[in-house]
Amino acid sequence: MHELGAPVLIDQHCHSVVGAELGEDAFASLLTESDRPLGPGASPWDSALGLAVRRWCAPVLELPQFASVEAYRERRRELGVAEATRRLLRAAGLGACLVDTGLTEAAGVPLLSPEELGGVAHADVHEIVRIERVAELATTPATAAHTWAATVGDALRRAARNAVGLKSVVAYRCGLDFDARRPAPAEVANAAAVHLASGGGRLTHPVLLRHLLWEALELRLPLQLHTGFGDPDLVLHRSDPSLLTGFIRAVEPLGTPLVLLHGWPYHRQAAWLAQAFPHVYCDLGLTLTHVGAGARRVLAETLELAPFHKLLFSTDAYGLPELYLVGSAAFTDALDAWLGEAVPVPAEAARIVALISGENARRLYKLP
Amino acid sequence: MHELGAPVLIDQHCHSVVGAELGEDAFASLLTESDRPLGPGASPWDSALGLAVRRWCAPVLELPQFASVEAYRERRRELGVAEATRRLLRAAGLGACLVDTGLTEAAGVPLLSPEELGGVAHADVHEIVRIERVAELATTPATAAHTWAATVGDALRRAARNAVGLKSVVAYRCGLDFDARRPAPAEVANAAAVHLASGGGRLTHPVLLRHLLWEALELRLPLQLHTGFGDPDLVLHRSDPSLLTGFIRAVEPLGTPLVLLHGWPYHRQAAWLAQAFPHVYCDLGLTLTHVGAGARRVLAETLELAPFHKLLFSTDAYGLPELYLVGSAAFTDALDAWLGEAVPVPAEAARIVALISGENARRLYKLP
Amino acid sequence: MHELGAPVLIDQHCHSVVGAELGEDAFASLLTESDRPLGPGASPWDSALGLAVRRWCAPVLELPQFASVEAYRERRRELGVAEATRRLLRAAGLGACLVDTGLTEAAGVPLLSPEELGGVAHADVHEIVRIERVAELATTPATAAHTWAATVGDALRRAARNAVGLKSVVAYRCGLDFDARRPAPAEVANAAAVHLASGGGRLTHPVLLRHLLWEALELRLPLQLHTGFGDPDLVLHRSDPSLLTGFIRAVEPLGTPLVLLHGWPYHRQAAWLAQAFPHVYCDLGLTLTHVGAGARRVLAETLELAPFHKLLFSTDAYGLPELYLVGSAAFTDALDAWLGEAVPVPAEAARIVALISGENARRLYKLP
Repeated sequence: MHELGAPVLIDQHCHSVVGAELGEDAFASLLTESDRPLGPGASPWDSALGLAVRRWCAPVLELPQFASVEAYRERRRELGVAEATRRLLRAAGLGACLVDTGLTEAAGVPLLSPEELGGVAHADVHEIVRIERVAELATTPATAAHTWAATVGDALRRAARNAVGLKSVVAYRCGLDFDARRPAPAEVANAAAVHLASGGGRLTHPVLLRHLLWEALELRLPLQLHTGFGDPDLVLHRSDPSLLTGFIRAVEPLGTPLVLLHGWPYHRQAAWLAQAFPHVYCDLGLTLTHVGAGARRVLAETLELAPFHKLLFSTDAYGLPELYLVGSAAFTDALDAWLGEAVPVPAEAARIVALISGENARRLYKLP
Repeated sequence: MHELGAPVLIDQHCHSVVGAELGEDAFASLLTESDRPLGPGASPWDSALGLAVRRWCAPVLELPQFASVEAYRERRRELGVAEATRRLLRAAGLGACLVDTGLTEAAGVPLLSPEELGGVAHADVHEIVRIERVAELATTPATAAHTWAATVGDALRRAARNAVGLKSVVAYRCGLDFDARRPAPAEVANAAAVHLASGGGRLTHPVLLRHLLWEALELRLPLQLHTGFGDPDLVLHRSDPSLLTGFIRAVEPLGTPLVLLHGWPYHRQAAWLAQAFPHVYCDLGLTLTHVGAGARRVLAETLELAPFHKLLFSTDAYGLPELYLVGSAAFTDALDAWLGEAVPVPAEAARIVALISGENARRLYKLP
Repeated sequence: MHELGAPVLIDQHCHSVVGAELGEDAFASLLTESDRPLGPGASPWDSALGLAVRRWCAPVLELPQFASVEAYRERRRELGVAEATRRLLRAAGLGACLVDTGLTEAAGVPLLSPEELGGVAHADVHEIVRIERVAELATTPATAAHTWAATVGDALRRAARNAVGLKSVVAYRCGLDFDARRPAPAEVANAAAVHLASGGGRLTHPVLLRHLLWEALELRLPLQLHTGFGDPDLVLHRSDPSLLTGFIRAVEPLGTPLVLLHGWPYHRQAAWLAQAFPHVYCDLGLTLTHVGAGARRVLAETLELAPFHKLLFSTDAYGLPELYLVGSAAFTDALDAWLGEAVPVPAEAARIVALISGENARRLYKLP
């Protein structure tokens, strides 16, 4: 899949993979963004992503392209989870993975640690810290409203110490159309009181979420933001990255980079933001994996306006090593196709590939 | 057009055709979504749809592809409305039509009854009941505010008795960004009083429209919802199906299927909803007919995320038999093109064609 | 580039070009919509537009396609600004330019007058008057709140005397989601008082902006409206032309044509508005220039619904003569590609090219 001499890919946003065999349903459940039971006869394999797994992953397991689902699953069991994972991850050709450690299991099965993942994939690993999770873990029954901000701030600084970047899922928690202003300390304390009174669990109070974003930006690490589609927990039109414009402007003086993840179906909007604002970057993460044969079109739409020094590569892979390979193969194939049309000069094409595949991420996250 | 051995198409949302000859202007007026007089020199034939009619329909009338408008209209008159209608409808290759009976004429000319349509098309016919029309027809000068709900509820149950599905045009009446909650009986009575006081005609009161939707869902028949573009009566950005997210979640416990029609230019949003929520389906209806040569791209964009067991086929044809054939031909051509790229395994491609062309609709509407 | 026998292009919305040599940074700054300093290593040349300049313009300067940026800049200096400008403008093949005179310099360098531009380009020139600028220039320290409307109305009528059309940048000033109603005189006077009290400079008061739009429509000249992407000064989702629907309906009785410019990424929405409403037109202006190799896709998406008698051509070129040639070449190439697929009948294709390239503009602006 990954050719000799091809530039090393830096996967700037991913999760880890499960280390144990998954049953049919658990495996299939990681091929869809839905978290609901499906109707009779329906299968997550019946999707662009299902086809993409059969297209790109089957050959790595020594099956023909588009082998049947049954043949694929059987061959995978035959190889065993360790060998299948090893083959799929290595075929993805990743030089480094920036792992969002905010998720620790998939389909009820624990994920490999970032170090284990790196070992299997032969890739360097770096940590991306999910800020809402840090805040949630830092909040205990002992936390008081007036100390919440300090407690969470300390936890964030500690968590960020070994990280190369931060990540926010504010799109899921209150949508991207939030008030851009940094909340005043009294507002934060009042909101913390409400949050703690309701149990202090999942963080959904808009004031606290905004406070957390502003705190995160003070740490001067690139901040990744989920935008666009995801699981049914989000409202799609409230995940349009263009809704962040007020926030993007408000934080511009800080200079901290913002990275808009995924984007679809608002990837053109993300591309414009990346052109318009010097501190804004974007990737297609989850998108290229899911859209399968549509990856060429979606990447091309993004490159209509995204500057070549602002677009990043990621897989957003989660749970299945297949998602690493599909993400990597779909990206490589789509970028090759685009370059074939837009840049018929090999040296120039190679330079652009290098930027988008890894150099932009290396520069942005100050990787070795 | 429709090849031997090709799967039988089930047109899950259409209207009927006129049974009489139309004048030039009346004919042309059915080729555009505009209901306004055009400027001098302008013709609805000068559009992607106009070209599609000349491309797909001319050969069925024994003319070369892209015959001139004049030649096309002359040949059609020569054949007579009955023969032209027969040829065009049969060439569409429809096995069954689900007819929205909410419209009874086009360009001032009565439409064939569903039975007459089925006879000419050699297709089974089933009824889709337009709920707003049922409510409007049930409301008489004698209707009182406190009996409106009961009257309309009775009428809806009666109308649904022989239907396989229901349809709502709430997108036209108040947009899709309506409050998702089921209104309380007192709210409904108050709203009915307002509605009746203003004459009790066209139903536009948001509370009554929401009440009607919730009532419809109790009947457990799939509920089709107009989304995306249409005639100038709607506000496009308020027809984005993603605006339905709150409603989709609120009605999820009922389990009644929702079918998002048309979608364009928000068909990607509809596709995500169909993946995320088990009770949500989508089609491209009006879209593939209108976009002509763009049908391949629009269908491909939809299949980026729409599960193959959730996408349906329809023409949304109305008035002209040409719109049946264009809808059917554009769909078949676009799906073939997509499969050629995404699924180079004939047996697998055939399975997917069968699902989207008719099996999904057969399962959803419990057709024989 | 522009072939013998090709229809004459009427560029229905452009600005002029600089008449003096620009430094590296100033030149590059006109290749991006961002007005911010770029990060280290970043260059506006690293974009679809940068590639498009190297593709379409290099041969006109006798360099190979995709010559390096250094080679391009060196050859341009060698030729001198006058000769490079002459070659690039003539290669654009423009028969007439409708110049928005609201901008008078680019990158700090004065623009050629419309007459000078026409002389170099061998094109007729006509004026488009930017209404917000007229209002701003008409407002002096002597203007009183109760005379603001009369003063500005007079200035607008004077400015329009020699113009073929008007233009509004209300998208930049308050977004397109403004109240559609014509403000009452007292509202206008109150708003003028607020505006004047804050210095009377840049016009951003929504009431005054709306008043200006309604005043402009009374002049019966086509009114161009910026929609879609632009520089970081706008909020993208508030530039969706569909947000204008209320305004489009409110002004429909006046009959004055509205021209939706640029559109991207909402060009499909603009296309629907152009089909739905007889007084609405659209172009792709800034878009085709910027998206480079993506121009074929974006034009095809627009032609999904835009009637052929409603789509216009423009470059929105500003500052650099390269932007005229890129806009013209991208449009011609994209339209040719679309016709090759959608209209395989040469005479018919030629008729459609003629409409979109210039006849629609000639009819709309009543050009000789």
